[in-house]
Parts: sequence; C-alpha cells; structure tokens
Amino acid sequence: MGGDHGPAIVIPGAALTLERRPDARFVIFGDEGQVVPLIDQHPKLKAVTTFHHTEVSVKMDDKPSQALRYGRYKSSMWRAIDATKTGEADVTVSAGNTGALMAMSKFCLKSMPEVDRPAIACLWPTVRGESVVLDVGATIGADARHLVDLAVMGAAMARVVFDLDRPTVGLLNVGVEEIKGVEAVKEAGRILRELNLPQMNYHGFVEGDDLGKGTVDVVVTEGFTGNIALKTAEGTARQISTYLKAAMSRSLMAKIGYLFARGAFAALKDKMDPRKVNGGVFLGLEGIVIKSHGGTDAVGFASATELGYEMARENLMAKVREMVAASARQEASAQEASAQREAAAQAATVQ
Amino acid sequence: MGGDHGPAIVIPGAALTLERRPDARFVIFGDEGQVVPLIDQHPKLKAVTTFHHTEVSVKMDDKPSQALRYGRYKSSMWRAIDATKTGEADVTVSAGNTGALMAMSKFCLKSMPEVDRPAIACLWPTVRGESVVLDVGATIGADARHLVDLAVMGAAMARVVFDLDRPTVGLLNVGVEEIKGVEAVKEAGRILRELNLPQMNYHGFVEGDDLGKGTVDVVVTEGFTGNIALKTAEGTARQISTYLKAAMSRSLMAKIGYLFARGAFAALKDKMDPRKVNGGVFLGLEGIVIKSHGGTDAVGFASATELGYEMARENLMAKVREMVAASARQEASAQEASAQREAAAQAATVQ
Repeated sequence: MGGDHGPAIVIPGAALTLERRPDARFVIFGDEGQVVPLIDQHPKLKAVTTFHHTEVSVKMDDKPSQALRYGRYKSSMWRAIDATKTGEADVTVSAGNTGALMAMSKFCLKSMPEVDRPAIACLWPTVRGESVVLDVGATIGADARHLVDLAVMGAAMARVVFDLDRPTVGLLNVGVEEIKGVEAVKEAGRILRELNLPQMNYHGFVEGDDLGKGTVDVVVTEGFTGNIALKTAEGTARQISTYLKAAMSRSLMAKIGYLFARGAFAALKDKMDPRKVNGGVFLGLEGIVIKSHGGTDAVGFASATELGYEMARENLMAKVREMVAASARQEASAQEASAQREAAAQAATVQ
Repeated sequence: MGGDHGPAIVIPGAALTLERRPDARFVIFGDEGQVVPLIDQHPKLKAVTTFHHTEVSVKMDDKPSQALRYGRYKSSMWRAIDATKTGEADVTVSAGNTGALMAMSKFCLKSMPEVDRPAIACLWPTVRGESVVLDVGATIGADARHLVDLAVMGAAMARVVFDLDRPTVGLLNVGVEEIKGVEAVKEAGRILRELNLPQMNYHGFVEGDDLGKGTVDVVVTEGFTGNIALKTAEGTARQISTYLKAAMSRSLMAKIGYLFARGAFAALKDKMDPRKVNGGVFLGLEGIVIKSHGGTDAVGFASATELGYEMARENLMAKVREMVAASARQEASAQEASAQREAAAQAATVQ
C-alpha cells in the first residue's frame, strides 16, 4: 500500500519480478478492494501469491511513532515485516514510509545482539561496477563504534553481493590525509586498522568523488551525510540528463547526430537508469527488509524486489550475523590482549 | 606557489584573467627563480604586476598549525593574504593548502565581529542557473547559531552575485518534512522562520537532489556534509562523462552520430566543465579570500581569479558585513521583544 502510487506499481512490479525469477513466490498484504483486482490482471502472479487483507495502511507522512501506534500488528506494513519473522516470507519489500518501515522492522524483527543500531545500505553504481554504501539514512549521527559496525555489516553485504573474500572498505571523510575530518571517523579508522579483520581490507579514508570512481567496495558514513550524498548524486545525474537532452535538440546537426547514435544513447540511459539500482537494504536486523524508493514505478519496484530475492537466496542475514559475531569476538580478544599487556606493564612498573 | 602545479598554472591563469578583465592589477608573491621567468613570458601581465619575492612556501600536506608556525609573516600565502589586509590588494586568490589558507586568513584578517566561524561558499551549477552553497569545508559540525550565520552570509553573497533583493534560502536536510533531521538544523529552521529577515526568503528544508534542481538560491549546511555533497556531485559528473565517452565510441553508428553532434557535445562539455565554477569564497572574514582547486589548470585558476575580481568589484565584504550586522540587530530586538512579552506575562500571572 506504500509509496506514491501504492498497489498500482507494486503489483505490476511483482509480476515483472516473477517473469525474471520464475521461482519467486509472493505474500501480499493490503486493502482487498484496491489490490485484488490488480492481482487478477496477472494470472501467473495470482497463481503464486498468498493475499492477506489488511484494514490499516501506514501513511507516507506519518511520524514513525504515530505509525507504530495505529499500525502495529494490523497494518499491511507491519504484517509484511512479520511474515519475514514467522518464516512465511524470506524477505520483506516495501515502498512505504521509510521511518515507519525502520521503526516497525526494529520493533518486530529486533536488532542483531551485537548491533546497536541498524543501517540502510544501497548499491551505488560506479565506473568500475558497484559499491555498497551505508548508512544512507537509517540513523543520524554515529560514534566510532557505530561506524565500525557499519563497516562490518557493509563488508558482509559486499562479500555476498560481489562474491569477494576481502572487500575493500573506506570511511567517507573530507580529506584523505589522516589529519582531517571528524573525530568519530578518525577513531573508527584507528579501530579498523588495529582490528585488521580477516573479512575485510580496510582502505582508509575516501572522499565524495571516490563514490563514483568505485575506489573501494564498501563506503561507510553516518546516515545524514550518506543520505545527502546519495540524493546529491541522483540529482546531479538528472541534471546532466537535462543538459544532454537540451544539447541534443539545439541544432539540426545535433538532432541528426542523435539519430545515428540513438543506440548509444539508449545504452547510456539504461546505464544511468535510477530504477535499476532501486532498493535500500536494512542491515543489522534479524530479518531482511528492502526499502524501495517511494516515487518509483513498476520497473523500479521490481528491481527492489529482485534485490531482496538475491539477498534472501544468498542468505545475506546469516552471513551478516556470522561476520558481526566474528568481529565482536575479535574485538573482545583484542581488548583482552591489550588489557593483559597493560597489566603486565603495570606489574613490571610495580616491580 | 600553491596547488599541484604552482606558478606554472597561476601565472598563465593571471594572464588569462587580464585578457578578460583588462583593468585587473596583480600583486604576486612567490619564489623569484620560479615565478619571474613565467611572468616574463607575459609582457602585458608583467606591466600590471607588482612582484614580491618570498623565501617560504606553504606545502600542500602540512597541517594548518605547522603552516602557521613556519609560514606566518613570511610565506607567499601569508603575504598574499596580508596584501588584502593592508589594502595593497582587493582580494586574495590561492590554489594552496585549504586548511592553511583558512587558518592564516583567520589569523591575519580576523573574523567579522558578529561571525563566530568563517565559511567557504561555492557557486553550484543548477538546471536553473547557479546557487550559492555553503559551508563546503571550512569547519566541521555546526550548531543552530552557526547555521543561521551561514544563511545570512550566503544570502548576502547571493544578493551580490545574482543581483536579487530577497534570495531564497534552504537548509540541507534528509527530508522536507519538519519532523525529520538533525536537531541543529531544525532549530536553525525555527530561528530563520521567526526572524523572517528582510534580506532573505527562508524556504525551509531542501534535500540533496534539490542542489542540482536549483530549488533555492542559497543552500546551507555544515562543512562536513557540504564538502562531501560537493565532491560527490563532481564525482558523479565525471562518472557520467566517462559513460558518455564510452557510449559514443561503442559502435560505428555512435561515432558517426558523435561527429554530427560534436558541436552539441562541445557545448555540453563546456557546460559541465568543472574549471568554470572553480573557486571557494571565504565568508565572514574582514577581507575576501578565494580558494582555487589545487588540481586545476590555468583556465580554472583564471575562473577563481575572476570570481575574486567580481566579489571585490561588487564589494561583497561590505555587503556581507552590513547584512550580518543588520540580522544581529534584528535578532537582538526579537530577543528583547520576547523577553518583554515573557516579563509582561509573568507580571500578569503575579497579579
């Protein structure tokens, strides 16, 4: 029921996913009157869908606390999340209110024990392929501890998505020199360097322009900056599309050129299509939830659904859980070793 | 002496500025052996230049404190800033170490009395023209008070640069709804709305994608986020250029199309040329200092110099000072009025 267009894009999006992933099965929650007629238009989808009617839908502009108050246990959003908890579904996908979706996911699924706060990760297109970027808006502000969690969860996702043993991880900062930047970012860099986790290769600081370059497999930042970087990049891409369109229609020669090169332009448009990289992955919860852009269409919603499909198929959550637990153990033993060294040093001083 | 290429780009850049602004005059500071032979290659520039030999140059990777220690009073950077203070120059332009340039500018020129911390503003190209965006990296972190200062200084610059009476001002946030975002940003929004300053039109919150849209004339954010947004946009633009080049050489048809449309591509390239919007303006100091990108070439350095020329010509500093003082007066009287209202209310309660 969520997003700017509700079932009108969700149902055709699901049908599109089914075409590409014929073994997908769907559990759909929403208002019967609005949803069922749309499902009926897609017989193949109908054949593999379990539909549950819900009376309540979370509105796009409600505060998370409001949505929890009236929508807990009974809204389509809550019940879709709960389906992942009960095992009826492997992954939940929603185009609804991000804050409410995160609040309900935390409440219903709970965070992993080692993770203080969940995060939203996205796949960022780069000239080298794609990178995992997180947090793009789950929480605002981050201490060093949380940034380290983000690095571990992001690396786990990169291992799954890019099939890498030791993905490279960078901390987003305002300069690559060690002297610059926020204290929490510097401290997180020190911790990651010292831990030297076997599941990731800590690269150091990266800057905003490293995002598009694909300098590292995983870019870590707190949610405010990450959200603004993501939307700035989307805005810049749209801005350049506008320039390009204007340039290609400014003269007859340009128009003729456009006709010759239209295959190339189509490929470029496809490459820059924001719908193809739609989907924020909630990390750090005991279940997988994917947030689709609220304003997307069926094609974009299908991308988010397919991202969820892949994450479930690759068992992302188990791998994140495993890596988070392993890094927590490693940190604990590093702390113990350092405490022992200190105690030994003190004993030596006393003697 | 600053930037990645030093006098090799600064001197031709100055010569280029002189071609376009024939009434410009130059005061140049640097190492005689490196600079003078270059000036000699540009007789017109030489005719309008006063050259001062300096023994010390600030290095690009020094900490600001180091640069201040060895470079105060005698480095080319310090002396160029000091020339603006003494009145020998109207504006200082440097491609050198940003941190050192800001530290020396603060030390030499001092901040305006009403401004706690100076900022770096840039002109951001948008589909509607240009916007002023600040702070893009002078200081990290900002309380509501500092964000309001940024809004006032940015609006003053927009009035000068865009010749507007009441430029629109937006606060960069992670959502346009009032419920979202960082506490300092929300508080700054409340203050700006209540103050309702005559010199600006406070628009409300904007998001990352509003930067490229040109939704407002002035976008305000703290330096960490602003710097990352700026570099993310630059990186995205370069990334799309790479895609475009690859698309235009992928087939014979595309290459033929490119030949027909090459005028349009040249116009697009020109529009996207990062050298044309080179130059960060230091605001809130008792003098104008322009920071050029360290990695730019002569064309880019000339853009920064011409930006400085315009700012000096339009008497930016006096206008910023005037507006900062006016808004401080207005705030003070708003506070007084509110205190009086409170006292009256208390008196009424007592009676």
